[in-house]
Amino acid sequence: MSTRIPVGILGATGIVGQRFIQLLENHPWFEVAWLAASERSEGKPYGEAARWKLATAIPQRVAAMRVSEADPKDAPRLVFAALDSAIAKELEPRFAEAGKVVITNSSALRMNADVPLLIPEVNADHLSLIEAQSWRKNGGFVVTNPNCSAIGLVMALSPLRQFGIQKVMAVTMQAVSGAGYPGVASLDILGNVIPYIGSEEEKMESESKKLLGTRNGAGIKPAGFAMSAQCNRVGVEDGHTESVSVAFEQKPTADEIIHAWEDSPTTSAIRGLNLPSAPERPVIYDRAVDRPQPKLDVNRGKGMSTTVGRLRPCGVLDWKFTVLSHNTIRGAAGAAILNAELLKAKGLLESR
Amino acid sequence: MSTRIPVGILGATGIVGQRFIQLLENHPWFEVAWLAASERSEGKPYGEAARWKLATAIPQRVAAMRVSEADPKDAPRLVFAALDSAIAKELEPRFAEAGKVVITNSSALRMNADVPLLIPEVNADHLSLIEAQSWRKNGGFVVTNPNCSAIGLVMALSPLRQFGIQKVMAVTMQAVSGAGYPGVASLDILGNVIPYIGSEEEKMESESKKLLGTRNGAGIKPAGFAMSAQCNRVGVEDGHTESVSVAFEQKPTADEIIHAWEDSPTTSAIRGLNLPSAPERPVIYDRAVDRPQPKLDVNRGKGMSTTVGRLRPCGVLDWKFTVLSHNTIRGAAGAAILNAELLKAKGLLESR
Amino acid sequence: MSTRIPVGILGATGIVGQRFIQLLENHPWFEVAWLAASERSEGKPYGEAARWKLATAIPQRVAAMRVSEADPKDAPRLVFAALDSAIAKELEPRFAEAGKVVITNSSALRMNADVPLLIPEVNADHLSLIEAQSWRKNGGFVVTNPNCSAIGLVMALSPLRQFGIQKVMAVTMQAVSGAGYPGVASLDILGNVIPYIGSEEEKMESESKKLLGTRNGAGIKPAGFAMSAQCNRVGVEDGHTESVSVAFEQKPTADEIIHAWEDSPTTSAIRGLNLPSAPERPVIYDRAVDRPQPKLDVNRGKGMSTTVGRLRPCGVLDWKFTVLSHNTIRGAAGAAILNAELLKAKGLLESR
Amino acid sequence: MSTRIPVGILGATGIVGQRFIQLLENHPWFEVAWLAASERSEGKPYGEAARWKLATAIPQRVAAMRVSEADPKDAPRLVFAALDSAIAKELEPRFAEAGKVVITNSSALRMNADVPLLIPEVNADHLSLIEAQSWRKNGGFVVTNPNCSAIGLVMALSPLRQFGIQKVMAVTMQAVSGAGYPGVASLDILGNVIPYIGSEEEKMESESKKLLGTRNGAGIKPAGFAMSAQCNRVGVEDGHTESVSVAFEQKPTADEIIHAWEDSPTTSAIRGLNLPSAPERPVIYDRAVDRPQPKLDVNRGKGMSTTVGRLRPCGVLDWKFTVLSHNTIRGAAGAAILNAELLKAKGLLESR
Repeated sequence: MSTRIPVGILGATGIVGQRFIQLLENHPWFEVAWLAASERSEGKPYGEAARWKLATAIPQRVAAMRVSEADPKDAPRLVFAALDSAIAKELEPRFAEAGKVVITNSSALRMNADVPLLIPEVNADHLSLIEAQSWRKNGGFVVTNPNCSAIGLVMALSPLRQFGIQKVMAVTMQAVSGAGYPGVASLDILGNVIPYIGSEEEKMESESKKLLGTRNGAGIKPAGFAMSAQCNRVGVEDGHTESVSVAFEQKPTADEIIHAWEDSPTTSAIRGLNLPSAPERPVIYDRAVDRPQPKLDVNRGKGMSTTVGRLRPCGVLDWKFTVLSHNTIRGAAGAAILNAELLKAKGLLESR
Repeated sequence: MSTRIPVGILGATGIVGQRFIQLLENHPWFEVAWLAASERSEGKPYGEAARWKLATAIPQRVAAMRVSEADPKDAPRLVFAALDSAIAKELEPRFAEAGKVVITNSSALRMNADVPLLIPEVNADHLSLIEAQSWRKNGGFVVTNPNCSAIGLVMALSPLRQFGIQKVMAVTMQAVSGAGYPGVASLDILGNVIPYIGSEEEKMESESKKLLGTRNGAGIKPAGFAMSAQCNRVGVEDGHTESVSVAFEQKPTADEIIHAWEDSPTTSAIRGLNLPSAPERPVIYDRAVDRPQPKLDVNRGKGMSTTVGRLRPCGVLDWKFTVLSHNTIRGAAGAAILNAELLKAKGLLESR
Repeated sequence: MSTRIPVGILGATGIVGQRFIQLLENHPWFEVAWLAASERSEGKPYGEAARWKLATAIPQRVAAMRVSEADPKDAPRLVFAALDSAIAKELEPRFAEAGKVVITNSSALRMNADVPLLIPEVNADHLSLIEAQSWRKNGGFVVTNPNCSAIGLVMALSPLRQFGIQKVMAVTMQAVSGAGYPGVASLDILGNVIPYIGSEEEKMESESKKLLGTRNGAGIKPAGFAMSAQCNRVGVEDGHTESVSVAFEQKPTADEIIHAWEDSPTTSAIRGLNLPSAPERPVIYDRAVDRPQPKLDVNRGKGMSTTVGRLRPCGVLDWKFTVLSHNTIRGAAGAAILNAELLKAKGLLESR
Repeated sequence: MSTRIPVGILGATGIVGQRFIQLLENHPWFEVAWLAASERSEGKPYGEAARWKLATAIPQRVAAMRVSEADPKDAPRLVFAALDSAIAKELEPRFAEAGKVVITNSSALRMNADVPLLIPEVNADHLSLIEAQSWRKNGGFVVTNPNCSAIGLVMALSPLRQFGIQKVMAVTMQAVSGAGYPGVASLDILGNVIPYIGSEEEKMESESKKLLGTRNGAGIKPAGFAMSAQCNRVGVEDGHTESVSVAFEQKPTADEIIHAWEDSPTTSAIRGLNLPSAPERPVIYDRAVDRPQPKLDVNRGKGMSTTVGRLRPCGVLDWKFTVLSHNTIRGAAGAAILNAELLKAKGLLESR
């Protein structure tokens, strides 16, 4: 008999929901036990309800599971959520209220003052925000992970905080899987660039500052750097590439910056916890002149590492470089699973 | 009998050479009379020597022309050049020395102190540099047009000079046609982004400053703004898209900036000259939230207009926006033809 | 004042509806006077209701027109239809019943015994089917054009009928625009081939036989050849490419077949009618070893010619070759407009 | 100490050479011990000489190996070859002459009467051809694997031989990796289909007949079916998709055909040999209406299975279906490694 912790997935049929299922297959700690999706999927076997879009086969056991109603009553205590923001705004509090631990990829509650926006390697201390969440009285709480464009940037910036980050400019070239399924129409993106993704720049800017902010009384004091994001969609399947420039208070050398990235396993806030989904190297610096590239680097660290390359001086700020991370693994389902692993390691999944 | 001015093309078989032929077909002032390419093409009919890659058919008259040796002796006085930089460095001075007017797209001589790097709408006054060129004594001279990534940016910046440009950051997403043929391997770019184009960032930075610089004694004093470029290749056929941020001395409003762009026909340095290839509007500002896009906007103004969109405040500099221009028309062959038209209008094509 | 014939468009906001507007702009005989679309577009200016997806700008006059209710009462006598099949099945008869001439691209009525499935160059005599249509008594009738995959094939086969077509095998590689907008999701087609398009093979087989069939009493006797179609979707924007093999009763030589294609202007059923949208050459045979290609050849004859290439012996049937035609021009809106032009030339647009 | 058999790779820097290295990393029987490539690579570390194009990292041990001269004197007895045909024609016999076992992916010797063209699951008995090879007297011999377009087709046809294959028509949609690196230019294939691949149709037809032929005296009697291939290039990275129609002597039902495919593990000519690279299921029949697709199915059986789908009646021959196989694994490096494994299992790698 399995002694793994049963988990549920809200929004199980979408692209991120599918990634949850893929990544949880053979997970050492968690086991998918409950799936919920929109009304038209309820009651169907998951294999029928979902249009499976991943290159690995749909796990047989999961394909046979019935899709449940999106109601907390039969859900396990730990629920991963991959819902559209509008629905998340209503459902996630309802699940937390009912005593569930909601680990969500949605943007709905990310910027709430008492909700941790969490990247374990970066700001594990933000987790303590849950203590004061109103839902906590019933045993439930909500933990969020950042937008897929923010996470790669923040993973790359985190080891550089020691140099005093002052200004950050990021221009993204984002993969179509970030828009879900059916998402971006092929007529719109084949051989094209779309210089607009709704609300993405705003999310990227505000989330980056919260992620790199500091615990402060009842909340988080956002990081003080100035930031500007420009978000573009390109015809790539998986992997957000970002051209980044940064100004620092202290003026680090290239070697100091690269050393900070290469030292990321040591400076990670979860060093030593042995979380199953944590990559060996949170940040990989690639010295090749033309890397990172989504086609070649997106799956490094099983999609959980952020790859950085092309560090060179910037004529306007101090340094510029390119960042790549996997938007549906590190930027969505994998991020949430790692958050859940941190909760487990901290003893926060046990019922009260 | 034709009374059009006979012109030659150096490097006629490449992608830019083909664009020259396409754009000069039915040109009111110029007529292709001489074609030269590498040794292995010499003596062949052009239609055999070139692997025609454009969607319009190869003009029959040109297809039947023999490819000549790349030697000035039989070339007409006006020669367009579309050569690799290393070859251009040797051939272009040889043609100028022999009394030819060389209008070149190559980067070889662009940054020479006495060679104009010319965009007629932007810096027509730089043309006077030719007066002191050493080749001028034989009646020849060289005029260059900028790199395909610099031209769109500079077209968009030019009407904003009145606000005092202080800092410019540009991240490009460049089309594969910019690399010539065969150029970028499909295995490298299908579903991918390559965050590196050799020497492109350096060219974009130095050329932009020269283009927006001022005539100063024997040369050009580069514009004084700080600049940083990051150049990426994406799987687009034609059209370089750029995410740009700018800081200004005077703090213009959005309306003032948009007005400056929309006023570009009036402020153009060639207003009233009626050059055949000059677009009605050098800069088009598109108010749609998701434009410009290469697929939809690259051919505006027959590929000679620069389209700008998404003007919005920048959290680090002052304003950010997106720029698009056609890299093998406005960024190469069309730019050179417009330069030749300016020479003609100024009476500089007549032999001495 | 315009003396052009006013026309309406049903389904004006979709991809094919947009093509109608694009192709009718500056049409010498017809002028867009009425637009209808789904309920949510009613009453809005067309420029707001439609998400314009074509690379030429939306005509200003049309952008300002109000979208009408899809009801025949205010529609002009001539109506082009670009509706989903299910809706077409209900609306098209309603418009015909009300005395309208419905020229439709939908598949709903194509195979009806008394409805002409028409390609003017191929089977103009089928038009006489309208005489017995039940709607005719009110002055209305319906004329259809074929599926976008059938038309290129049939255009290429038509000049070969003289050799006795016995068997036809066609494998298609179809563009995404054939699926409308949003149509094919980018996640499904980027770097992929989808070997299935719902009902497409059935349509291609039955329509090809009707198109090449003969007037026979009250209907059409389908052509007697055996046929098999396999339909694939590929990541091309416009242009269906088809690998075709054919067996003939008489065994024509390659020269005879090529001559038949090159003779297509002479053998066209509409020779001499000077229909504005009829291409000079219905079929173009390209002798290059690697043509036709969608990127290079799709717009030949303004998108109304079919390009054929690579004629060579087939080891199973007799001859094999490649066919290309534009799926939203020759395969949809352009086909319908050409049909309307034939009606006009035959005096069939006049009210009774 | 390793007890694995040392192997060499001729043409180690190309795309197929890289696949050899990738697939041999951690191979239980073989170990890369010698690498050769063109003169300009000689003496360099492999990591410098090769432009690594695969998404898994270059193995460190191999990256550090020096590239040797392409001369048999220092090569191990077992050599995999991934050479251009013209070079293979000269080098492969030289290596065999020198006593080497040459397992080659090149087309140079495939159709030689005394050279086995081998797919272990299909025609393992053809291997006995090597006994009479002239090179055998020195202990060397040559074994070839088929073209990347032939192998998927033949894998799918092999289990159907029992029904008496009479006629085969195949239209391919081939991936760009089949053309090597740099191979297909991005300008040629982005958003395009190229209906021509030099010599591919001829190879596909003749090789399929030899592969399914029978041992006959000193050689192979080709299979007697009629065959016709049409080969197209599409913008897919890996995976050749084929639309196939077949006529049979006996008229099998759909169930009988599907059963034959699903029975392929049993009918495989290497059942029970436990070759490490042999897929569990040589042929997988997928019942989904829209499969196989390269994006989703190319890596089934670690790229060594052939996926078949969409079996349905054909209006011209008897049955039609879609075939997919990985062109650089099953269609190149993986095929050669499996051939070497068969040789090992048969005791044919031991020196005489």
